[in-house]
Amino acid sequence: MEYVSVRTKEAIAYVTLENTKQHNTLTFQLIEEIDELLQNIAKERKVKVVVIEGGKKAFSAGHSLQEIQTRSQEDVLKLFQRCYQFMRTIREIPQVVISKVEGVAVAAGCQLVAISDLAVASESARFATPGINSGLFCSTPAVFLSRNIGRKKAAELLFTGNLITAEEAFTYGLVNEVVPSDQLDERTEQLAKDITKQSLEILEIGKRQFYQQLQMEDFQALNYASDVIAANSKHPDAEEGIQAFFEKRRPEWPSEKESVKKA
Amino acid sequence: MEYVSVRTKEAIAYVTLENTKQHNTLTFQLIEEIDELLQNIAKERKVKVVVIEGGKKAFSAGHSLQEIQTRSQEDVLKLFQRCYQFMRTIREIPQVVISKVEGVAVAAGCQLVAISDLAVASESARFATPGINSGLFCSTPAVFLSRNIGRKKAAELLFTGNLITAEEAFTYGLVNEVVPSDQLDERTEQLAKDITKQSLEILEIGKRQFYQQLQMEDFQALNYASDVIAANSKHPDAEEGIQAFFEKRRPEWPSEKESVKKA
Amino acid sequence: MEYVSVRTKEAIAYVTLENTKQHNTLTFQLIEEIDELLQNIAKERKVKVVVIEGGKKAFSAGHSLQEIQTRSQEDVLKLFQRCYQFMRTIREIPQVVISKVEGVAVAAGCQLVAISDLAVASESARFATPGINSGLFCSTPAVFLSRNIGRKKAAELLFTGNLITAEEAFTYGLVNEVVPSDQLDERTEQLAKDITKQSLEILEIGKRQFYQQLQMEDFQALNYASDVIAANSKHPDAEEGIQAFFEKRRPEWPSEKESVKKA
Repeated sequence: MEYVSVRTKEAIAYVTLENTKQHNTLTFQLIEEIDELLQNIAKERKVKVVVIEGGKKAFSAGHSLQEIQTRSQEDVLKLFQRCYQFMRTIREIPQVVISKVEGVAVAAGCQLVAISDLAVASESARFATPGINSGLFCSTPAVFLSRNIGRKKAAELLFTGNLITAEEAFTYGLVNEVVPSDQLDERTEQLAKDITKQSLEILEIGKRQFYQQLQMEDFQALNYASDVIAANSKHPDAEEGIQAFFEKRRPEWPSEKESVKKA
Repeated sequence: MEYVSVRTKEAIAYVTLENTKQHNTLTFQLIEEIDELLQNIAKERKVKVVVIEGGKKAFSAGHSLQEIQTRSQEDVLKLFQRCYQFMRTIREIPQVVISKVEGVAVAAGCQLVAISDLAVASESARFATPGINSGLFCSTPAVFLSRNIGRKKAAELLFTGNLITAEEAFTYGLVNEVVPSDQLDERTEQLAKDITKQSLEILEIGKRQFYQQLQMEDFQALNYASDVIAANSKHPDAEEGIQAFFEKRRPEWPSEKESVKKA
Repeated sequence: MEYVSVRTKEAIAYVTLENTKQHNTLTFQLIEEIDELLQNIAKERKVKVVVIEGGKKAFSAGHSLQEIQTRSQEDVLKLFQRCYQFMRTIREIPQVVISKVEGVAVAAGCQLVAISDLAVASESARFATPGINSGLFCSTPAVFLSRNIGRKKAAELLFTGNLITAEEAFTYGLVNEVVPSDQLDERTEQLAKDITKQSLEILEIGKRQFYQQLQMEDFQALNYASDVIAANSKHPDAEEGIQAFFEKRRPEWPSEKESVKKA
């Protein structure tokens, strides 16, 4: 891997964009690398949380305009289809994905924050979807941006290309928390640790259910959720978890004692 | 009724969860009792607003983990299907349902706040969906939680199980108002009274339309709404209401003068 | 035109409701006039932004209750269907539509703010959907109100009819910005100017895509967006825009040099 690195700490994988010279533009190669990395993390099931981080100045500047400029339309489409696959991977891996944002998160960089399950931003972080300024409307970033924040603010960002601050991003719903820059590492790790206490198998059930039901009519969603929770209730991890609750102790997940993990 | 009581004041029914020893857990029996109570309220059409209230320490702690633990999967599913019916009742009764929250509203207790049409919280109220801590993801609470608040915060609550304050619940959109504990009764009653001035038949039309159109594509919704409002405009209550508006007086709803009420 | 006027400044059309004696009620005639005006603006393609403004005391008081009272149900339906067409026009014209709100924006006046792509409000602006007070539930305003702000607050506005302040409207997501009354003109113009720098053809692509994808399942939306952005990338305006980005200069949109504009 040339543009992405990974380090693991307890049950957290820190995935770092390493294309800082180019403001972590999401080139085709970087997208392939990070997507394969995440798919491996999903297969290995050794961590429960993935933290995606960029550089001090740029979380990510989005797609490479150079790449878009030099490719044919057919090849640009392939680039966006590859990125689509990367977005699906984030959605489909069992792990909870947290974007840790310092510097600018722009265009597809902003999209990456929006598709993530959770996001923590440094006070100095900035967000924008400025494609319109170059005649290239941020159509793909628009999708998850508008599923995180209200219509009026999403439209404003997309039609003006203007930057918003971390505090605004929090207010509108794009990030979960804004913290001083010097506490960004620590606070993101704290959030990740809150989640590593959970069972990976149950996080997986929950993550799938959460996003599936969002797409449904209210009571279709509740009906589906009822099926999911009834099945979940007899999962060995739930049986242990409920017993531990009554005994006022921390649960030890049966699924995590087995030596052979689910592939 | 063992676990629920009701008192009526003017056109407001106060429905109180009376299982405080068990933090108002929503046992099968409690769910049956409150559901039947609400269905009767709907049939009688004597009140216009239902206020659901719990205890000082717990609005509701959600489902009984004991009940879930001791039941078979099939019977757990029956429990959740019974609760599904209760949720539908809240949605389908003509009355506006307000959750008045003091203490903790947790898991299905939080779901009850979320499905309610409106909610008022005391400053000391706390909200959480902590099932994940016991290996039992809050799939059913997730449904209406994520239809009240943004994705990022909903995911955070569901994946961490952490509590949020009343003020946070207001900021994210889960409750309409946060008030000092000693003003909770008064302020909730004021909100309820604002609504009892309205015609029950028109509230019924409005409540049904509001939730139906939420599920539709934008202009399908507007088309449906146009049909509803055109019909509504010739309802005797609208004819009186519009006339009263011109005469600068309070309307006297014709539908509420009739001795025979719609069943 | 009797009830609407228009003045053009650079690439901004200011459309003013001129029925101030009747608080800018959206009579059938006013709706016809403004709809035709907007359709002409769309055809001519001379401006990029449309600012809709009302009077100092009333942005718009909504539909005329007098008109609703005196028409048959069939004719009331025609009124709402005409208004439906006006709403579609706002959605379908290539220009970005900004509501500039001073005074009250009530019922269909509030709906007009909600359907607009963007909205700027004076500190003194007030918003409400008070139809319920007259027995006429604001079913049509409910549609876009509930697509701008959360369910709980939307329900509160609709069931109580109570006014909210401009600051509340901002907090809940109904308007993009709240400014002191004496800066309303200037700040709205600044926002409009930010957008007039963009290419109208790209704004058109973006506006259509933005609203289309909102109605889709997450990854259906992303798939559609990928097609749109790949095609957009080879639009002459994008080719120029990207080149200008590399050359650190302002783009000169090829589509706006042509003498013959797209009809």
